[in-house]
Amino acid sequence: MASEGGLSHRSRRMMPVVSPSLERDAGVRGFESDGHVRLTSNGCMDLEHIITKKRQMQMKTESLRGDLMKRFDAQVKEFVEAMIEESISFEPTPPVFASSVSEKDKMRQLRPSPEQGKLFISRRSLLDELFEVNHIRTIYHMFIALLILFIISTLVVDFIDEGRLVLDFSLLVYAFGNFPLVVSTWLCMFLSTFTIPYALLHQWARQYRSARFKRLSCLWAGTLFLIFQTVVLGFLPTYVVLRNNLPPASRFIIILEQVRLIMKAHSFIRENVPKVLSSGKEKSNLTVMPQISQYLYFLFAPTLIYRDNYPRNPVIRWGYVGTKFLQVLGCLFYVYYVFMRLCIPQFRNISLQPFNLKVTVLCVFNSILPGVLILFLAFFAFLHCWLNAFAEMLRFADRMFYKDWWNSTSFANYYRTWNVVVHDWLYYYAYRDFLWIFGKRFRAAAMLSVFTVSAVVHEYALAICFGFFYPVLFCLFMCFGMLFNFILHDRRKGPIWNVIMWTSLFLGQGVLLCLYSQEWYAHHYCPLQNPSYLDLLTPRSWTCHNQAVQVKAD
Amino acid sequence: MASEGGLSHRSRRMMPVVSPSLERDAGVRGFESDGHVRLTSNGCMDLEHIITKKRQMQMKTESLRGDLMKRFDAQVKEFVEAMIEESISFEPTPPVFASSVSEKDKMRQLRPSPEQGKLFISRRSLLDELFEVNHIRTIYHMFIALLILFIISTLVVDFIDEGRLVLDFSLLVYAFGNFPLVVSTWLCMFLSTFTIPYALLHQWARQYRSARFKRLSCLWAGTLFLIFQTVVLGFLPTYVVLRNNLPPASRFIIILEQVRLIMKAHSFIRENVPKVLSSGKEKSNLTVMPQISQYLYFLFAPTLIYRDNYPRNPVIRWGYVGTKFLQVLGCLFYVYYVFMRLCIPQFRNISLQPFNLKVTVLCVFNSILPGVLILFLAFFAFLHCWLNAFAEMLRFADRMFYKDWWNSTSFANYYRTWNVVVHDWLYYYAYRDFLWIFGKRFRAAAMLSVFTVSAVVHEYALAICFGFFYPVLFCLFMCFGMLFNFILHDRRKGPIWNVIMWTSLFLGQGVLLCLYSQEWYAHHYCPLQNPSYLDLLTPRSWTCHNQAVQVKAD
Repeated sequence: MASEGGLSHRSRRMMPVVSPSLERDAGVRGFESDGHVRLTSNGCMDLEHIITKKRQMQMKTESLRGDLMKRFDAQVKEFVEAMIEESISFEPTPPVFASSVSEKDKMRQLRPSPEQGKLFISRRSLLDELFEVNHIRTIYHMFIALLILFIISTLVVDFIDEGRLVLDFSLLVYAFGNFPLVVSTWLCMFLSTFTIPYALLHQWARQYRSARFKRLSCLWAGTLFLIFQTVVLGFLPTYVVLRNNLPPASRFIIILEQVRLIMKAHSFIRENVPKVLSSGKEKSNLTVMPQISQYLYFLFAPTLIYRDNYPRNPVIRWGYVGTKFLQVLGCLFYVYYVFMRLCIPQFRNISLQPFNLKVTVLCVFNSILPGVLILFLAFFAFLHCWLNAFAEMLRFADRMFYKDWWNSTSFANYYRTWNVVVHDWLYYYAYRDFLWIFGKRFRAAAMLSVFTVSAVVHEYALAICFGFFYPVLFCLFMCFGMLFNFILHDRRKGPIWNVIMWTSLFLGQGVLLCLYSQEWYAHHYCPLQNPSYLDLLTPRSWTCHNQAVQVKAD
Repeated sequence: MASEGGLSHRSRRMMPVVSPSLERDAGVRGFESDGHVRLTSNGCMDLEHIITKKRQMQMKTESLRGDLMKRFDAQVKEFVEAMIEESISFEPTPPVFASSVSEKDKMRQLRPSPEQGKLFISRRSLLDELFEVNHIRTIYHMFIALLILFIISTLVVDFIDEGRLVLDFSLLVYAFGNFPLVVSTWLCMFLSTFTIPYALLHQWARQYRSARFKRLSCLWAGTLFLIFQTVVLGFLPTYVVLRNNLPPASRFIIILEQVRLIMKAHSFIRENVPKVLSSGKEKSNLTVMPQISQYLYFLFAPTLIYRDNYPRNPVIRWGYVGTKFLQVLGCLFYVYYVFMRLCIPQFRNISLQPFNLKVTVLCVFNSILPGVLILFLAFFAFLHCWLNAFAEMLRFADRMFYKDWWNSTSFANYYRTWNVVVHDWLYYYAYRDFLWIFGKRFRAAAMLSVFTVSAVVHEYALAICFGFFYPVLFCLFMCFGMLFNFILHDRRKGPIWNVIMWTSLFLGQGVLLCLYSQEWYAHHYCPLQNPSYLDLLTPRSWTCHNQAVQVKAD
């Protein structure tokens, strides 16, 4: 079906790369431009030509050997790095010989020692490495080509409709509406997170050493911190969002920042309190309190696990930062076009039709393509570009924000590799602390509770963003996610499990996009005047078409 | 939006791989199962534990070093292979010193020497190598997941419609209809190609040596061969196809085999005639005629360039052959589902609507996804699976049926790399023979003529298959293909050119699928009773909706 014409000069490509001067030389002495052997008039092959050829061969060998050695060198480096990583993964021998056993035993009972916590290592993001392979880079180019086609088709259709070029981004303007309020809310959230936990910790640490009722002091400070987390970070931003009826993207920014700051503050306190406790017990006057600059760095760094210091890169490549932000912007417009061309035309009318199983099934399957595109774009824009841009600006060297989740053969592995930043937080502060509190026997309960927390927070974010409660993600998470987590466990390694993982991921994206969009339009078409508490919890899309039909009949 | 729960035991993954016996040993001496250091009762660290740890380290180092050396070894091998390939691409020094100059000069004037022809080298297909990389293999898995979703959605929708499971492949049955006739036609074509050119060559070669009028003998044999090519291979299969009104897929098989056999016969004659001519001039009695078994092998081998011998593999991996044929079958069903779910619902109604620029533009853009899927599937099914299956069965070792066309930054390169089998034929027998006949100054004319031949043959195949003449592919080929061939030439190397290549490829597939489908349905909806010659050349889709509207009005 496609074509095989267009024959440019083949032998040219087979020729080795030689310096222009040498090539000219060779052309004079015995080569024709297409590489045929030219014979001198006496019938013997020009000896000089053979010498030239040999020289060419040697140069080629040289270049190939150079290439080989470069690759070998890179691999030796990789080898050494792997060695270092492995040797670190053996717990570094703690200074056990110096202190008493009982002290250490207490330490172990108290909490998992920080040495067992996350280790930050200087490493690049996987996609940055993969994009150096031209086959993978081509996939990136195909996505850009698709974006260009989205733009062209939208422009052409608008031109036909309106007779002029239309650049209408009213959807984006709507979604990011009331932006000054978003910025000011974010500033308040950020400043309070920046000052209050830090001040609380300092105050408590100073009192703790001299306090007579250490427990009371802890309880008091803990209560204050909890109030800060629930009221200042938990309640106020949500109130602002709902009170001002912000549009979805603006809501999304505030809610994500809210969750992020809560997790950051938790990590900061969680990592520093044991230090104070242990220094208090050791009665040492050595204060190991973090500096305010360290806390500020942590608040911006792309990690949710507090450390006083992280591995750092020597320089900032501003070109890299610019590229990453441009890619984020590109993804934003990509999502806009996916909505404009694939989602809105499909969903606008579907909610008005009477409920029909076939229509819903078709809707789910038609939603797979935009759903998966949005998943990929969200992953690329946030987990790769956004985090890498901030990491680069902060010279933060540990760029493992995700692993190769696309190769997962189990959902357990998918959950671990999709978002390493959040996963690490959940692993260290939810899963391991759960086991530390309740004992190591309750692994299943720990996993279930972490799963539930994650599902609830995801559903909370979606519910606030869309302005309605429709726990599709929660159900998928708790039913299929949990089920698959136990069926598709880590021992499944065959390629068939990767196929199953992708099939369910595709299907899940289709279900999510289709059902949430239906509900969105149902709320748009069938607004309730004085909704009861039950009305708020009942999905509107289940009854909206009946109402629409009734209205029409009236 | 997605999830980060599901935390299985992380430290397990960080543990080095040690032999079970060693691990048991370590467990006894100082390790807990989760890798924490256990302290003996006297408070000192068990010295034996340190020894165990060291031993573990050593083992890990050993395994890493083994891995490193394996990789290095593989790369040395690659290096050596690259060296060999490069050294071959320098023309092997012909035995020039032994024979006279005038003879060689004559040879060169006569034709490009066989040494300059295609060199068959034992090598694997690129996709077979790429699929060993798990990231690339995942893409393959994603395609399988999509196929599974196509099947599920079709089954579910049919179940809702009919209330029972429906397995209806009537489209496939229709498309491959009248299969016995296809098989018998193919047998006739094959047997005639197997016997007639071979017999003609033998007869002519025997006569040629003793003939007084060598030119006349050549002319006579050449005319007979031309008649065979045009009448037996060119006219008869087309006649059978049109006369029996075969359905599209059956037509496609016959037409493709027709073109393939014409090219094979041409190559066989083209490669052997010069041998006879030169042996006749040398007055040697040495007959270098190919054996019938060599010709038979060539007729099945996945190449269009005749050689007496090809590099061969030592064994046939029947499992590989089975996998490849299964993949071909999978692609067939994939294309079926693409048609059933993405094409037919869209195109069935579009032809009945009055002509509308907006509808056509939307149709083109909606056709991009199915069009690109069909392109990928055709490439994978035919150029990778089908050819590799036959190559494996014939122990044919040169598997470079395509190169990395997806990385092309120029259309010239795309044309060269998409289908190497056909490209080589066109390059050696059309392009280079054109230059040999008309002189090396006419490179542009040679390229243009090869382009035209390729475009005409493609359009001919489509016209016969679909049963109508609508030269969309021809126009795209000759206008945009040529244009891009000169704009996107070989010096374009930047990634932007790869993006442009993909954009135009996507768009081209959309245009092709949309316009040919419209025309197909126009022929279906608006059949003509006694079409004039002009009617056969006029695209029916340009006028069909008017007729449909008129019929409705009547």
